[in-house]
Amino acid sequence: MSDTSKQYAVAIDIGGTNVKAGVLSRDGEVLARQRVLTEERKGGEQLMVKLINLAKSLISEVGKSKQQFAGIGVGTPGLPKDGVIMSCPGKIPGWEGTHACADLTKATGLPAVMDNDVKVIALGEGWIGAAKGEKNFVSLALGTGVGGGVIIDGRIYQGEHAVSARLGHMVVEPHGKLCICGNRGCLEAYCSARSIAAAAIDHVLRGCETIILDLADGDIRNIDAKTVFDAARRGDPIALEILDKTAHHLATAILTIMQAFDPKCMVIGGGVAAAGDLLLEPLRKIVKQYAWTGPGEVVDIRASTLGDDAGIFGGAALVFAELC
Amino acid sequence: MSDTSKQYAVAIDIGGTNVKAGVLSRDGEVLARQRVLTEERKGGEQLMVKLINLAKSLISEVGKSKQQFAGIGVGTPGLPKDGVIMSCPGKIPGWEGTHACADLTKATGLPAVMDNDVKVIALGEGWIGAAKGEKNFVSLALGTGVGGGVIIDGRIYQGEHAVSARLGHMVVEPHGKLCICGNRGCLEAYCSARSIAAAAIDHVLRGCETIILDLADGDIRNIDAKTVFDAARRGDPIALEILDKTAHHLATAILTIMQAFDPKCMVIGGGVAAAGDLLLEPLRKIVKQYAWTGPGEVVDIRASTLGDDAGIFGGAALVFAELC
Repeated sequence: MSDTSKQYAVAIDIGGTNVKAGVLSRDGEVLARQRVLTEERKGGEQLMVKLINLAKSLISEVGKSKQQFAGIGVGTPGLPKDGVIMSCPGKIPGWEGTHACADLTKATGLPAVMDNDVKVIALGEGWIGAAKGEKNFVSLALGTGVGGGVIIDGRIYQGEHAVSARLGHMVVEPHGKLCICGNRGCLEAYCSARSIAAAAIDHVLRGCETIILDLADGDIRNIDAKTVFDAARRGDPIALEILDKTAHHLATAILTIMQAFDPKCMVIGGGVAAAGDLLLEPLRKIVKQYAWTGPGEVVDIRASTLGDDAGIFGGAALVFAELC
Repeated sequence: MSDTSKQYAVAIDIGGTNVKAGVLSRDGEVLARQRVLTEERKGGEQLMVKLINLAKSLISEVGKSKQQFAGIGVGTPGLPKDGVIMSCPGKIPGWEGTHACADLTKATGLPAVMDNDVKVIALGEGWIGAAKGEKNFVSLALGTGVGGGVIIDGRIYQGEHAVSARLGHMVVEPHGKLCICGNRGCLEAYCSARSIAAAAIDHVLRGCETIILDLADGDIRNIDAKTVFDAARRGDPIALEILDKTAHHLATAILTIMQAFDPKCMVIGGGVAAAGDLLLEPLRKIVKQYAWTGPGEVVDIRASTLGDDAGIFGGAALVFAELC
């Protein structure tokens, strides 16, 4: 029951640094954009005020009547369920327990819907990104951490306790590196931007010959995943080795995801995806080499195309999927 | 739209040795049972004749009118889709391409439905077995090979190409043992009955001190997974070590399944499940130790309760789920 008179969505994406928000049309046009600092440490109450102000300000900015809005879609870190933040481990004090959707609706008169930021972005990829038109696919966000989103029949797969698709904590190296989750050898411990930077710093500290430190202006505190990619593009053997290991660990995860979910495609996003074909080409080769060739095609591995706006495209996709 | 006047289902389970079939009522009562040898080598046409004869014979045996039957449910090895066997690698010559459901319907006048044997058993577990009443769970069949079934919202999860839930080919030991699928380190290469027996034989051949060979009457050809479990129950250190490794590899897979699917429970079936708490108790401990403790409970690991009849309960569950 799609009410196409409701042409617009307010989308809000709560990131670690910024809260980005926008008004998007049903065909994916961004009519307005605003962003404010998240200031996580100021806590959940302050954040809620920011969300309400952003929504009100955007609605007023685009000059459309309330009746033309399908609703507000929010992507948040942590675990939301039914419009309430159930848990948000160590990120935003006081955000847990916030009835974010009810508060937004009370302030704006619009229905609101909320989901985990990474899952929301996956939905956006299917709406208007790298998986446009696909109904079954899996998205991996390789950022500071590693998150996943599983789309089944065009909807976010939730699982029994809404904690599905924590694909960053798939084990890719049993007895491997300790992960922040307490287990060892998780995908996140190898393929997050943080882990790639840590691997580079480890090599530098051990005195390996590499241009990584030079590219970081001689200060290990400046080394991040992008430094490693830049060094790899210049043929630095240490950087290339780190990327090779990243590709192998990622391939292990993707092979298991293929067997488990049988998706049409995989979308790789987040900061690590900035490595582009430097990472994706070897990744595709390894997956093709080891994939069980059955009637299912080898999964199509695609780079995210939503870029910096992924979160607000996702928020709008959530509105049009759930509230129309 | 449940037509409860249709009280009965014919269920057919095509196994490696026997084709088991039965008539089951909507409340899980088995009214009749028949079995014939599968005789895989005689090929798909012969097998289809057996299926038709079993169905007709059972319908006649129970003395109910055709109108009281909801239909015929078949569990088959390989990959069926829309009632046709799409692939059945190396198992039953000529079975591929068989329009099994259409042939059964033509012969009996009853609608027929078919799915992969392991997926069908998973559905049976949710209908009347260890996962009774659960809507989201994952079933692992640890038999000669290792298969999986994923139930989401009470239905078999199929994936994009109906090759989902090949959980035997999740990677649990990167660069590990070569698996029959061509990849290395798959769950099946460690936790199938065949792999457990092979590990025991490897120890015996290398001269390790163990009672396993004695329990097999001094003939390594008699060593199977059950021999290992029997030796473990008597405290044999080699058998205990094999079981310990099996539990660890299985735990690696289950931790990943937890993160990916967030199921309410896991059901462990198949011949290896005969190890019972000897395997499941250490397995539960390892999973609890390494599971990321979030708002989701640690997954409940249960032994299959359907036993030898798992396949026909599954076939009937498929009928009542899909044809009513």
